[in-house]
Amino acid sequence: SLLRLKDLEVAELGDSDVHVKRLAAPINPADINMIQGTYPILSPLPAVGGSEGVGEVLEVGRCVTALKPGDWVIPASAGLGECVPRHPRHRWTPARRPVRCAATLSVNPCTAYRMLADFEALAPGDSVIQNAANSGVGQAVIQIAKASGIKTINVVRDRPDLSKLVERLMALGADHVVTEEMLRKPEMKDVFKSIPKPRLALNCVGGKSTTEMLRHLQPKGTMVTYGGMAKQPVMVPVSAFIFRDVRLRGFWVTQWRKDHAQGE
Amino acid sequence: SLLRLKDLEVAELGDSDVHVKRLAAPINPADINMIQGTYPILSPLPAVGGSEGVGEVLEVGRCVTALKPGDWVIPASAGLGECVPRHPRHRWTPARRPVRCAATLSVNPCTAYRMLADFEALAPGDSVIQNAANSGVGQAVIQIAKASGIKTINVVRDRPDLSKLVERLMALGADHVVTEEMLRKPEMKDVFKSIPKPRLALNCVGGKSTTEMLRHLQPKGTMVTYGGMAKQPVMVPVSAFIFRDVRLRGFWVTQWRKDHAQGE
Repeated sequence: SLLRLKDLEVAELGDSDVHVKRLAAPINPADINMIQGTYPILSPLPAVGGSEGVGEVLEVGRCVTALKPGDWVIPASAGLGECVPRHPRHRWTPARRPVRCAATLSVNPCTAYRMLADFEALAPGDSVIQNAANSGVGQAVIQIAKASGIKTINVVRDRPDLSKLVERLMALGADHVVTEEMLRKPEMKDVFKSIPKPRLALNCVGGKSTTEMLRHLQPKGTMVTYGGMAKQPVMVPVSAFIFRDVRLRGFWVTQWRKDHAQGE
Repeated sequence: SLLRLKDLEVAELGDSDVHVKRLAAPINPADINMIQGTYPILSPLPAVGGSEGVGEVLEVGRCVTALKPGDWVIPASAGLGECVPRHPRHRWTPARRPVRCAATLSVNPCTAYRMLADFEALAPGDSVIQNAANSGVGQAVIQIAKASGIKTINVVRDRPDLSKLVERLMALGADHVVTEEMLRKPEMKDVFKSIPKPRLALNCVGGKSTTEMLRHLQPKGTMVTYGGMAKQPVMVPVSAFIFRDVRLRGFWVTQWRKDHAQGE
C-alpha cells in the first residue's frame, strides 16, 4: 500500500541538531493532494507526510543556543515531514500555547492574513466576501477581519444543520452568513444595505460558487483564488473583466514563504 | 424596424459650432452590441449609431479658433453618433491622412497600444500572445509590438485559406501565427525555442481558446480580456491562479478614456 506506519530509531544528536517530540499534527487538504501526487510539490520517496504541527524540544546539540529543552517549535516551511527544524534560524515559537492553535498556526491563519493584507488596501468598514467560510482559512479570515474592523460576508453550502453553522460563524465574528443559493437571490440586496459591496473576494471553491460570488464584487475589486474544492475551473463572464474591471489573482502560502524567505 | 435611414437638415451654425462632413465611418462590434442593447452604454432613443470615423470641417462658428475649414477631425470619445466635435477642445487631428487609417484610429489601435503598455513592463525581446489576431485590435497589436521589438504569437481560427491569412499577418510583422488547435499540441514547444514564454496574453475570444492560451503564459504573467467573440466565459483552472500566479485583468477603451479625460 501507499502509506505505511513505521517505527524509526531517533538519530544520534549532532552538534547543530535538535530533537523534537511531536505534540500534534493536523491533516490539511494539501497533505492529501501531495500523497495523491496532484500537488506541484513532489517529494522524493520514501517521504514522511504532513506539513505542519507543533513539537516540544527534548534535547539540543552543543552548538544550539536559540533553543532549549521544553521550548515549543513549529516547522518553518511547508513540505513533507518537516517537523524538525534543523537550524536554529528556523525556530519560530508560537506566542500562544493551546496545542491546537500552535499545531495549525503556520498554514491557514497565514494564508488568511496575507490574503487580507496583500491584495486590497482595506480600511475598517470595508467588506470581504468568501466562500468555504467554515474552512480553516475561512474561520481565520472571519477572526482576523473582525479584529481589523472589516466586515465579512461568508458563503457556505446548504446543509441540514445550517442554523448551527451560522451560529458558530457569527460567534467567531462573521457579519453575514449566506448559502451559495442565496448569492443569486434578490435578498442579497439587503446585505448591502448595511455594508458596502466587497472590494475583495476570497475563493476556495471554483465553479458556480465563484461565478456567483463575483457578481457582488465592486468594480475594480480583486478576487483571490487559493483553493478549488469543487474541482471545477473558475468561470468569469468576459463582461466582468471588460465593463467592471475585476481583477483575478491567486495565492499560495508556500510560494509566499519562498518569495519572502529573506525577511523571515 | 429598429434602424431607419433619415435625411436631416444641417442645424444652423452657432458661434462655437463646427460643421463636419463625414468622410468614412467603420462599424465596430461594439456598435452592433449597442444597437442590440447588450452593451453597458444605452443612449436615449432616437440615437445616431456609430462611435468612430473621420470628417472634414466645412465651416466653423466665429468663436472657434482651433479648427478651420479643410481640417480633418475624429471624435474625441466613443458614443452614439458623435461625429461632430462641438467644442474645439475635442479636436484631434490625425497626423496621417489615408482615410481608412483616420477613420479607424480612435478605438482599435488605442486599445492595442494601452494593453501593450499598461499591464506588463515589456522590453524588446519579450513576447505577447493574443487570440483573434486578425481582428482590428489584433493587427494593431502586431504592428505596434513589431515597432517596439516585442515578439508576437498570434492565434487564429483554422480556415480554408489559412496560409493566405498567415502570410498577411507575417507581412504585418507577426513572429508566429498558430491555430487554436495547435495551442495544445507538443509542437508549441518549438515556438518557445526562439522566443521566451509570454508575460502578457490578450484575450478577445473567451471559452476554450482562452484556457488554451493561458497554458503558455509565464508564471506571474497577465491575461487581459477585452472581448468575448465566442460568447463563452473565461475558464481558468484554479491551479493556474494558485501555482502559477497568473493575473487576470480586463480592458475597455471607453472606461480608459473616462479615467484619463483630464490628461487629454
